[in-house]
Amino acid sequence: MSRRYEDLTGPEIAEAIKPSSILLLPIGAIEQHGPHLPMSVDTVIAEEVATAVVAACGEELDVWQLPTLSISKSNEHAWSPGTLYLSPETMLAVLRDIGRSIATTAAQRLVLLNGHGGNTTHLGTALRELRLAHGLKTFLMHPSLPPAYGGTSTEEELGMGIHGGLNETSVFMYLRPDEVDLSGAERKVPERLAENTHVKFGGSVSFGWLSNDFDPDGYIGDPTGASAELGKQLFDNAVAKLAEAMVEISTFDFGR
Amino acid sequence: MSRRYEDLTGPEIAEAIKPSSILLLPIGAIEQHGPHLPMSVDTVIAEEVATAVVAACGEELDVWQLPTLSISKSNEHAWSPGTLYLSPETMLAVLRDIGRSIATTAAQRLVLLNGHGGNTTHLGTALRELRLAHGLKTFLMHPSLPPAYGGTSTEEELGMGIHGGLNETSVFMYLRPDEVDLSGAERKVPERLAENTHVKFGGSVSFGWLSNDFDPDGYIGDPTGASAELGKQLFDNAVAKLAEAMVEISTFDFGR
Amino acid sequence: MSRRYEDLTGPEIAEAIKPSSILLLPIGAIEQHGPHLPMSVDTVIAEEVATAVVAACGEELDVWQLPTLSISKSNEHAWSPGTLYLSPETMLAVLRDIGRSIATTAAQRLVLLNGHGGNTTHLGTALRELRLAHGLKTFLMHPSLPPAYGGTSTEEELGMGIHGGLNETSVFMYLRPDEVDLSGAERKVPERLAENTHVKFGGSVSFGWLSNDFDPDGYIGDPTGASAELGKQLFDNAVAKLAEAMVEISTFDFGR
Amino acid sequence: MSRRYEDLTGPEIAEAIKPSSILLLPIGAIEQHGPHLPMSVDTVIAEEVATAVVAACGEELDVWQLPTLSISKSNEHAWSPGTLYLSPETMLAVLRDIGRSIATTAAQRLVLLNGHGGNTTHLGTALRELRLAHGLKTFLMHPSLPPAYGGTSTEEELGMGIHGGLNETSVFMYLRPDEVDLSGAERKVPERLAENTHVKFGGSVSFGWLSNDFDPDGYIGDPTGASAELGKQLFDNAVAKLAEAMVEISTFDFGR
Amino acid sequence: MSRRYEDLTGPEIAEAIKPSSILLLPIGAIEQHGPHLPMSVDTVIAEEVATAVVAACGEELDVWQLPTLSISKSNEHAWSPGTLYLSPETMLAVLRDIGRSIATTAAQRLVLLNGHGGNTTHLGTALRELRLAHGLKTFLMHPSLPPAYGGTSTEEELGMGIHGGLNETSVFMYLRPDEVDLSGAERKVPERLAENTHVKFGGSVSFGWLSNDFDPDGYIGDPTGASAELGKQLFDNAVAKLAEAMVEISTFDFGR
Amino acid sequence: MSRRYEDLTGPEIAEAIKPSSILLLPIGAIEQHGPHLPMSVDTVIAEEVATAVVAACGEELDVWQLPTLSISKSNEHAWSPGTLYLSPETMLAVLRDIGRSIATTAAQRLVLLNGHGGNTTHLGTALRELRLAHGLKTFLMHPSLPPAYGGTSTEEELGMGIHGGLNETSVFMYLRPDEVDLSGAERKVPERLAENTHVKFGGSVSFGWLSNDFDPDGYIGDPTGASAELGKQLFDNAVAKLAEAMVEISTFDFGR
Repeated sequence: MSRRYEDLTGPEIAEAIKPSSILLLPIGAIEQHGPHLPMSVDTVIAEEVATAVVAACGEELDVWQLPTLSISKSNEHAWSPGTLYLSPETMLAVLRDIGRSIATTAAQRLVLLNGHGGNTTHLGTALRELRLAHGLKTFLMHPSLPPAYGGTSTEEELGMGIHGGLNETSVFMYLRPDEVDLSGAERKVPERLAENTHVKFGGSVSFGWLSNDFDPDGYIGDPTGASAELGKQLFDNAVAKLAEAMVEISTFDFGR
Repeated sequence: MSRRYEDLTGPEIAEAIKPSSILLLPIGAIEQHGPHLPMSVDTVIAEEVATAVVAACGEELDVWQLPTLSISKSNEHAWSPGTLYLSPETMLAVLRDIGRSIATTAAQRLVLLNGHGGNTTHLGTALRELRLAHGLKTFLMHPSLPPAYGGTSTEEELGMGIHGGLNETSVFMYLRPDEVDLSGAERKVPERLAENTHVKFGGSVSFGWLSNDFDPDGYIGDPTGASAELGKQLFDNAVAKLAEAMVEISTFDFGR
Repeated sequence: MSRRYEDLTGPEIAEAIKPSSILLLPIGAIEQHGPHLPMSVDTVIAEEVATAVVAACGEELDVWQLPTLSISKSNEHAWSPGTLYLSPETMLAVLRDIGRSIATTAAQRLVLLNGHGGNTTHLGTALRELRLAHGLKTFLMHPSLPPAYGGTSTEEELGMGIHGGLNETSVFMYLRPDEVDLSGAERKVPERLAENTHVKFGGSVSFGWLSNDFDPDGYIGDPTGASAELGKQLFDNAVAKLAEAMVEISTFDFGR
Repeated sequence: MSRRYEDLTGPEIAEAIKPSSILLLPIGAIEQHGPHLPMSVDTVIAEEVATAVVAACGEELDVWQLPTLSISKSNEHAWSPGTLYLSPETMLAVLRDIGRSIATTAAQRLVLLNGHGGNTTHLGTALRELRLAHGLKTFLMHPSLPPAYGGTSTEEELGMGIHGGLNETSVFMYLRPDEVDLSGAERKVPERLAENTHVKFGGSVSFGWLSNDFDPDGYIGDPTGASAELGKQLFDNAVAKLAEAMVEISTFDFGR
Repeated sequence: MSRRYEDLTGPEIAEAIKPSSILLLPIGAIEQHGPHLPMSVDTVIAEEVATAVVAACGEELDVWQLPTLSISKSNEHAWSPGTLYLSPETMLAVLRDIGRSIATTAAQRLVLLNGHGGNTTHLGTALRELRLAHGLKTFLMHPSLPPAYGGTSTEEELGMGIHGGLNETSVFMYLRPDEVDLSGAERKVPERLAENTHVKFGGSVSFGWLSNDFDPDGYIGDPTGASAELGKQLFDNAVAKLAEAMVEISTFDFGR
Repeated sequence: MSRRYEDLTGPEIAEAIKPSSILLLPIGAIEQHGPHLPMSVDTVIAEEVATAVVAACGEELDVWQLPTLSISKSNEHAWSPGTLYLSPETMLAVLRDIGRSIATTAAQRLVLLNGHGGNTTHLGTALRELRLAHGLKTFLMHPSLPPAYGGTSTEEELGMGIHGGLNETSVFMYLRPDEVDLSGAERKVPERLAENTHVKFGGSVSFGWLSNDFDPDGYIGDPTGASAELGKQLFDNAVAKLAEAMVEISTFDFGR
């Protein structure tokens, strides 16, 4: 049986979506990822991970997968012709509208599964907005936590495989082997940042950046050693970890 | 070779997208369609038709298919729990953002392929906004023109197969045979409207309506006789007609 | 007795405006109409037609004429110095505010009588917004349906007397004979469009256009043969047809 | 020759509107004015005064009268069913749009002639916005200055003939003798306010009020002695004074 | 005991803030004030006057001082690098948000104590918005009424000590003697304006102006004779007058 | 010499603010902090820390302290009467306006020093907006990193001294010893959250919460053992660390 929300009919929504149901919204992006990866990377990964998570625990935890939001707040790539991006105001309006729509069902839990690091803070803000407006329990998860927000990356990349780096490239190679071309890819690591103690990705001081601030090619990390094998491993780990998190989400209460 | 826009890399956009290119944006909806059809109908149809049109003429006419916008202005179904909808303000903001993004490429033609009748007027408004803001040549097409905007429907339905009626149901049966359940479907035709000369779908006076204004079940038309065969015929005709229209679009000039 | 809404006092509103009442809002435009017509054309026609319709059936059908909205969404003429225009966002805000105001009366029916083709789609969108927000029954009518939205025009104009063409010029000549100067008027018909099957005014594919896209003079049609006689005939026909439509509106129900 | 802006054709705008031209925008309101006056009062007065001022000095000073904005920020009467009002956000958006439209002509001076006291502060704010955005020289005048903003009223009314009082009623009687019905009118003066030194209309401390704060009938002043004679005198004085002010406006420079 | 609102704890708010309480919001500005005064002038004056008023009558009248809003609508100085300013839309949004926050307490009276003349009209508009939205009794007072809004200034300045003139400079000298440097200050009076009968500060016709319209140095008035003595006198007078006004505010009723 | 931005005159801004200058904007909040702390906590801490940081390194690094933004996005406390809060839309508008104002100076670096955890994500979003809009180098620092965003808290509090806990209370005790009343304070730790591996403060899955979700008293942590001594130590450490970070900020470059 399908666990895609949109495969339900209107009347079925009223029965299938229960207070115990978890709605899962994958959020991707259509944005430049350097010369080695297509614009679709974040959308593909968000959707594939979501699908795998739902396959793993959807029945057990009553999870319903919403249609992937493929265009989001990618304005760090505004300099790159063709990147499709929403302003933060538009993005918040879309999320408010979706939250308002979901609040008409019986579901009480909404999980944002975000494949695009550039959305992280804004989705964090939206979590509270939707909780405040509708009483929804809202959650934000990532296929892998962006290094800028507490995640890790390889030592080789000095922990800065932020965008189009080893891990992301590998995962995408696993998912879409034919769509990766490493021939033009290089190591693009902002070494200078690594000298900082505070002002760096994941440091105590965060900073505003555009993807071409570091290098005109607009990717950050070292995809040269990427492989589908590593990708599979990362993907499987991510799915396992997120499925585990979904268990916590399914019973999450504020403890009050 | 893929004709999906998002399968291009950032650098490829700069080469592949040319002044002659046509960008095709399918627009669907996630909204109730009665007890016989899933919420995904408009999105599936918009995306499948777009894909078929691109298969038919994409190479020849240099068409690139953008990711489908699956959630749109479906507020005529706001009464139906679970319908996902944007307000007109949000929808216009999304379209402005996409237009602003596309305007950074070399493309000069943007085609909205709209699968949801409820978007028709608002997309009509957006056509001008994007032309004015960015000089884009903008077009709006439908898999089949909604009866409320000049399209036709069966005589049985008194021309009012607006939403979940014979044609839409048939096309969806062809595309997703397993997702249609006609067992609970009935003829839902607002007979009274047909008595009007002016105030009716496609009449000289249009009117504001919500999908439960006519019947609490929220669909309008008669799906009972729907069949995949009819659906295939309608689908093929639609694709052929739209591919024909794409030729006109590819050379469209204002004649000045 | 006056049927102008604004001629009522506040306390009279509470008595005179009943559930059966129809509120009629004429919407015009102040925009360039070529060298032969003043900027006021759409406003004058909308107001005069509204007045004549109310004279014909106002008492019988309990119609109240609201003050004409003279400035509206005319941004297809943004290129022409002096055209006064609202953005679609402003226009929708104005209509929402008026709808919210009207919803405080007992009236349940609001008719937009639109003299400016460029408003057509946006008013179509507003019909639903005001129905959804306030439960109003909302209607949109035109003195004559714009060719781009299902209306007709002369064969000479190849059906494209969109703006400042034969019919509009004639009607205005009838209403304001001293304000028309045909001496500089020419035939301005975008012949090339007529070759299209799909992409044309009233075709299955609509397109974004600005009024100087076709010709730098910014009018579309052939006013050269305009006459007050033709104008009177068109005006009288329009009024008769709209009065007929008002009867349908007065008893309009969704049939549920 | 007409001095109505909208009577010009598009091409005439380019010639007739010169850097020396003054554009005059009458702003009215459609709002309750008690049981003795119709909703149209402010719109009628603004338009009639504007017309008279233009008759008096239009040719000499190159003044062009814009179409009257009849619906404006009347939300102090939101409690009164039928009052048509814009929010301050909508009103400012309309004024910004009009300013942006006017800025495409050669005119450098825009005069707002405001017939509705409730707009006074907001128009004051708009003056600067349009100057800042477009470099326009912007002015705000009133048929008679509202007592709350430095104007006067009769002693009988304790200076508080704010809305529907002696002067306004008289002026309207002069302009539309048939539309005034004093039979139900009473003296409605908030005596208690007059005891204040600071917090009162025109005092050093202003305060937020709705028109039914003082009396459920929603008018403030004493119209009982109103007469067309007084109205004529007030009207003529106002026009003379405004025409005088227009001379100053026509040569106004910041003295820099 | 502190009369600063922010010195209360959350639970104390519920007890200390009563229906009789008056909340006092000082509003300043950070904007250029010529070469003799720092950018802080309006904020310092608003806060110091508020503090003195609360010291004078806070206990007796149950006044609570809110944190000073230091950045406001100073866009008449947009030309001057470094002036911090909000647009009117942002400023109104801030005031609406504060009003919505305050409306959750038991307080019914909100006083805006405005130190920046450029806010005057916009705050006037906000008074009504907050009254309408939340039923608050709202008031606007100034340390000294701006000449453009009914206040006075010296004869030497021809009544135009609008910004950085004798009085404001003196008051600031009294409050912050070390922060005034009169060495570069000159008399900057737009003499030409004084010739006008109608179009002038405080005249019957108001006008849009930027602070560099009159003089590139951006101040208006004659600070050359400023002294702390005069400042003290003005300050004390202002405080006394405002404390007097606060008494009226504390018992203010609409008299209905 | 003062390092307060607002103590400069307009002309001094042009000289004193250089490309090397760092502008430091403290951001606080006026929100409930339980029964033991006043509403001012975040504003006081942000301002005091900023002042100390500027005292420590302002001269050397050319830092200028902007006026503290005292009211911000505190809507997790919307349930608590009296909390003053901006919506995210208003907050972003304020930050955009300030960014636009600052961009007129020569400064290229803007540091947000945020005392309110609830702003963290939204300020993170704003960093990019201001960089994109104006090319500013933007930074976000905290007196101490909120546990929900990578910071630490005591073991006793299970790392959840989020709001009004041991550290914050101690720091405030050090700064304002007379304004803390520990008599009613209790340990308020959402033990249940600590059982989670993923969904917890600082976990891989973040969640939307309001401050009364965990406990009706609305604080989170254990202030019972707070002391001014600990506060001093934390404060001094914070200042030292931020001053160190300011050195990095002063030479920060993207390494391109």
